[in-house]
Order: sequence, then C-alpha cells, then structure tokens
Amino acid sequence: MSGSLFAQRMSRVKPSAIMELVKTTAAGDYISFASGLPDPCVFPQETLRTIADDVITRDGRAALQYGPAEGYAPLRACVAAMLTQRGLTTTPEQVLITSGSQQALDLVARALLDPHDQVVIESPSYLAGRQLFDSAEVNYQTVPMDAEGMVVDGLAAALNGAKLLYTLPNFQNPTGLTLSGHRRVELARRVVQADVAIVEDDAYYDLRYDGERLPPVSSLAANPWAIYTGSFSKVIAPGIRVGYLCGSPEMIERLVCLKQITDLHTGSLTQRIAYEYCARGFLEPGIQRLRDVYRARRDVMLAALQEHCPAVLTWTRPQGGMFIFCTLPVDRDATDLLRIALARGIVFVPGAGFHADGVGHNTFRLNFVSEAEERIRSGISVLGDTIRAWLA
Amino acid sequence: MSGSLFAQRMSRVKPSAIMELVKTTAAGDYISFASGLPDPCVFPQETLRTIADDVITRDGRAALQYGPAEGYAPLRACVAAMLTQRGLTTTPEQVLITSGSQQALDLVARALLDPHDQVVIESPSYLAGRQLFDSAEVNYQTVPMDAEGMVVDGLAAALNGAKLLYTLPNFQNPTGLTLSGHRRVELARRVVQADVAIVEDDAYYDLRYDGERLPPVSSLAANPWAIYTGSFSKVIAPGIRVGYLCGSPEMIERLVCLKQITDLHTGSLTQRIAYEYCARGFLEPGIQRLRDVYRARRDVMLAALQEHCPAVLTWTRPQGGMFIFCTLPVDRDATDLLRIALARGIVFVPGAGFHADGVGHNTFRLNFVSEAEERIRSGISVLGDTIRAWLA
Repeated sequence: MSGSLFAQRMSRVKPSAIMELVKTTAAGDYISFASGLPDPCVFPQETLRTIADDVITRDGRAALQYGPAEGYAPLRACVAAMLTQRGLTTTPEQVLITSGSQQALDLVARALLDPHDQVVIESPSYLAGRQLFDSAEVNYQTVPMDAEGMVVDGLAAALNGAKLLYTLPNFQNPTGLTLSGHRRVELARRVVQADVAIVEDDAYYDLRYDGERLPPVSSLAANPWAIYTGSFSKVIAPGIRVGYLCGSPEMIERLVCLKQITDLHTGSLTQRIAYEYCARGFLEPGIQRLRDVYRARRDVMLAALQEHCPAVLTWTRPQGGMFIFCTLPVDRDATDLLRIALARGIVFVPGAGFHADGVGHNTFRLNFVSEAEERIRSGISVLGDTIRAWLA
Repeated sequence: MSGSLFAQRMSRVKPSAIMELVKTTAAGDYISFASGLPDPCVFPQETLRTIADDVITRDGRAALQYGPAEGYAPLRACVAAMLTQRGLTTTPEQVLITSGSQQALDLVARALLDPHDQVVIESPSYLAGRQLFDSAEVNYQTVPMDAEGMVVDGLAAALNGAKLLYTLPNFQNPTGLTLSGHRRVELARRVVQADVAIVEDDAYYDLRYDGERLPPVSSLAANPWAIYTGSFSKVIAPGIRVGYLCGSPEMIERLVCLKQITDLHTGSLTQRIAYEYCARGFLEPGIQRLRDVYRARRDVMLAALQEHCPAVLTWTRPQGGMFIFCTLPVDRDATDLLRIALARGIVFVPGAGFHADGVGHNTFRLNFVSEAEERIRSGISVLGDTIRAWLA
C-alpha cells in the first residue's frame, strides 16, 4: 500500500503502546496493574440480565429499532437529573447520549478543532484523549499537575490563543489526582475570561472513596463553551457503551447533527438497559458496593507500596478512581523497570506515553481496581523487591 | 453563542430536512413512506430476548467488559465467512466491527479525506453518507444513474484527480437501483486504473427479492484501496448498532487505531448478540422471512402505483431493498406535492436532498417496507389522487 491516499491526520494516528502491552499480557499469567479496566466481578450481571429480558419483552420494537440521534428521551432526563444533583444544573435538552464518554470527546473535538488549533491539556493526561486530539492535528500547551490537580497559576499564558482546555477534575487518569475546590473556581473563571472552550471529562465522578464531593468546574461560571462528559462504563458496565455529554442547548443542537452522521445514534437497546438500571434504583446501591470494593483495594495497594517499596519511589494517594501514579528518581526510566518486572510476572504502564511534552520517563501508572486484594499484595511485594534490586 | 469556536467543518454540518420531516410526522396519524426504517414487526424479538439472556448468563463478564477495538473475534470470523460466501474472499483480519455501517463510512472518511479532496458519488445518493462527506469538507463529482445503476461511461473524467468513489451497488438508497454485472466489472477496473479508493456500501445486500445475486465490486479487481461496508441493521435489528467493514489488512490496521480513539470499540454485549444470532442459524431463515414480507409489500406498492398514478409519473422497479424512487414532470417540485399530501395524511421524502448537484426537485422517495400492505394500498391510492389533482 503506497499510503498516498490516507488523509493528513493519519500520520498522527498510531497504535498505542499501552494497548499493545495490555493486549499481549492479557493472555499470560501476569498480575496486571496495567489495564484501564474495572473488575468484571463487580458487574451487576444478574440485574442486567433481568433488565435486558424485560426491555426486549416489553419494549422490544423500540429497543431494536433506530432511535433519535440525541438519545433515548427518558435517559436524557435521567442524566439531566443526575448532573443537576452534582451541582451542574442541566435540562434534558442539554444532554446528548453517546457511545461511551470517548465518543463524547470525539464529537467535541470534531465540532471545535481545526488543524493547528491550540489545546491545553494536563501533563500527564488521559492517553486516548490525547490520541484523539493528535488525530485532530492540534498543537499542545501542557499544564503541570501537583497534589491539588492542574496548576492554575500561569494558566493565562497557556490559555492565550488556545481553542480548548481539557481536564479530568476527579481522580485523573493516569495520576489519580483531584482538582481542589479553590482551583476549580479559578479555572472556571479563567477559561471564560480567555474565551476558551472547556471539556471536563468526569468519567470517575462517582468513584469517590473519601473526602467531600466537589462541584463540576462547568457549574462554577456561566460558559456557553463548557462541555461536561461522563459515562455509565464505570458505574454500570463498559460493555454497554453508554456515555453522555452536557453543554448549552445550542452546542447540543450542533453536536446532535454530528452524532447523526457519525453513527446515527447510540444503541437503542443498551440505552434502555442503562435507563432501567437507574430508574429501578440500582445505580446508587451499585456505586456504594463498588466504592467499598475499590476503596479496600486502594488501601491494600497503598499499604503494600509503603511496606515494600524503597523511599526513593513516591506515589499519589488518590481519593477515588482507579489509578495510583508512581515516580522514580528522575534519571530512571520506567520502561527499563517494566522489562524486569514483566520477567517476574508483573505488568504496569510506563508514564511517558501519558505526557504530551516528552517528560515522565521516570513515572508509571498502577491500576488498583482490576486485581483482587491478595494479588495486589503479592504483586506490589514483587514489584517493590524488583525496584530495590534494580535501583541497587 | 458567538459561533467563533466551532471548527471549519461545522459550517457544512446541518440538520437534515428529511430527519426533521420523519420526526415531526412520526407522532401524527400519517401513512408514512418517508422513513428509512424497517418494520419493527419483523424484528426477531423473542429470539433476541433468549440470546441476550444466554449471553449475559454464560459470558456476562466479557459481554459487559471493554473489548478489542477491532471487534469480537468470533463475530469478525463470522463476517469474514459471510463475505467470502458473497464472493468477496475475506479473512477475519480484514474485518473491523463498527457501530452500524454509518460508522464504517465515518471511519473511512476520516482515514482518507482531507478538505477539498474530490469524492465521486452517485446522483442521487444516500443522504447521511453525503452529509458525512460534507462534514469532511470535500468537493463532489457526481455520476448519473440509469436502470443499470451508476453510469460508468464518462467515469474516467469524474475519477480524474479524485480520492474516493462512493457507491451503493444493490437496491441503492434512495433509487432502489442495482449496478448491473458488466458495469461492476467496468467500475472495479476503472477505480484501480485511476488509483482511487472505492467505498462499496452494501447495507441492503441480503434484501434481494428477485433476480440473481451479483458479486461485490470489491471482489472484481485486486485493489488495496477497496473498502466494503455492511450491516446487521437490516437483517437482525438496527437498535443493536452492529455493522462492519472489510478492507486490506493494512487498511484495517489503520482503521482500528481510528476506531479506538473514536469510541474505543463497538458494544461487547450487542456484538455477542449478533454473533449468537448468526452462529445459532437464525440469520438465513430470518432473511428468508424478511424477503417474503418485503417482496409482497414492494409488489403491493408497485401495483398500487400502476393503478392509481397518472402516466406522467415514472418510478423505479427495485429487485430488493426498501425504496422506490419516483419522478414527476421536470417542471414540478416534489416539495409542493408533499405539502398537499401531508394535508391528506401521506408522507414521503422529496428527492432534491439526495442530490449533491442541485437537481432532482421533481423526484421523491417512497419506503415500501415500513407500512403494512393495506396501508400501502390506501396510501398510494390517496397519493395517486393527490398527484392527479395537483397536476391538473
């Protein structure tokens, strides 16, 4: 194949090293902290079976037919109520149902980004988000993170001339860091001032294990260019591919047209399954159970890191989500560590790939939700020994 | 909203008049020949209920979990076998599972098209396909249709400097026309000669009611830039959103990366439902039933048109699919007719919107599958009277 017929953007669409790693190790006998996957043991399998059965029996004709591009009306209303409860006052007309929150990002990127536009992202940031922006042929301004999340001092310079700012305010992937309350206010104010669109990717909102819930950035300033995205992937199941985005009614109207030509609409059946799951009151107790399981796993991993890892390794202490982010001494490369760890049956993701600015070689990400407690303990013990030996 | 933050392409993303029409008339008491929808009465509701139940019971963890971007391996193999049977020799590695065949088109458009590229399309053509190409900011070369489908004489000029040719070879939406066997050979040869990619949208392949099956254009010449798309929407149910595309392994590899950043993957649950439907042998008898129902409806509509419409109205006689395309005298506008027909409770789609070249004002599309026979008879009778009165 000559390659000559591909569009310009394809030169920036590459296979993800992380996905390849997760794939090649999935079959083997590894303790894996590498994936971005929730634990399938926590999926509400029996409940979803009953609901799927009911939906097809009672409403099969509509559930199997084409549906509106904007989504199933009761689900839009349900999402609007849910977001309003989070502090983001939302009407059903402000909600677009998407095929997972990745598609929400994709639609926003297509609606707003021309080649060479400036996008402001956290360093590090969500990999598939950055890959998506790459495919939009944009340039980046990166903003560093600290314990309070995105550093907002100096943001004015990054926002200058930018089109869009992308943030994951809660338990960010990959760092697990959360944007503090006062920084949220500051961030909301600054993007409005700079006339920059903000995409707030809040896929982990409900996975808070301690601390107080913080208001969405999008709720803290009137901003017609604020877009908030979320997902049922983490709180029901990813395999149904139901997410959503919220924006101004005018923005939603435009995005609905885009959704229509992209894939007509999100699955009629799975949207109804998600809706019934919420309407029958399974969501809140389900989240409660998830929180208990995942909190315990986080605590096990944090304790094991403390017990087994040398003092030169530092790590984040997330209040929620799925990830802990580790930092090695600055002259060390996590991909070298990975090579040795793999030989001992341990997988994690080196951090360089999450950074758009060529740094982070000495960092790596650990998923603390996808293995059971006992395997987390033994895996981190082996990892700690490996790091000690490797650093020595 | 100032509009200033939208990307260039959004100036070419507009609401579809057809969708608006279908939407506004859906609630009312109309006999509708307007939609692109199959009849939900023919959906295999009970079978799909049983299968969904089994899939979640037996394979729930995987069916509810994230899955590979390229699709569920057994479904890829199943599609490969199906396409091979159609005459298009295909391996599983050449198949990408998509969220309906609309997404297949979208992925191809994103992979191949830069702004100002030339796209060759049939006139008229599938509306949501053209809207998608519009959003890719391309220019068009249109090719007329006759009773044998796309006219291939004079194609060389259209192909000159083009990037991609888009065709619906079987029972085209909106005309119902089928590309003849000898034109398929000619078309396959010419796109290879011109080094132009071809996207063959074969969503209606199985809905053939008479005449012999013809080989896919993509099977008639070795072409690394041939992409064939299809869907389970018409032969299982659209609400599950499962389609596919087939291309060279190199092409698929690139498209999988794009699929990954677009929406990660097509629903794990619905892919398994589609697979089980095929694997348990429901597909062929299901298609057989569909053919019998839809053939009868087509025959009823053709007979009713013959009986009730004036001789100045001409229409296509499709061998399959869902649509009959009608042509009024050239000085007449189908939107004027629609206004009167609506007042009498009949809806159809004016044809101008399907044309990229500003013609077709005197044409309209009738869907013959979505109403039952009795309503087709009475609807066409009213429409015939309306046309007579309006022309007089």
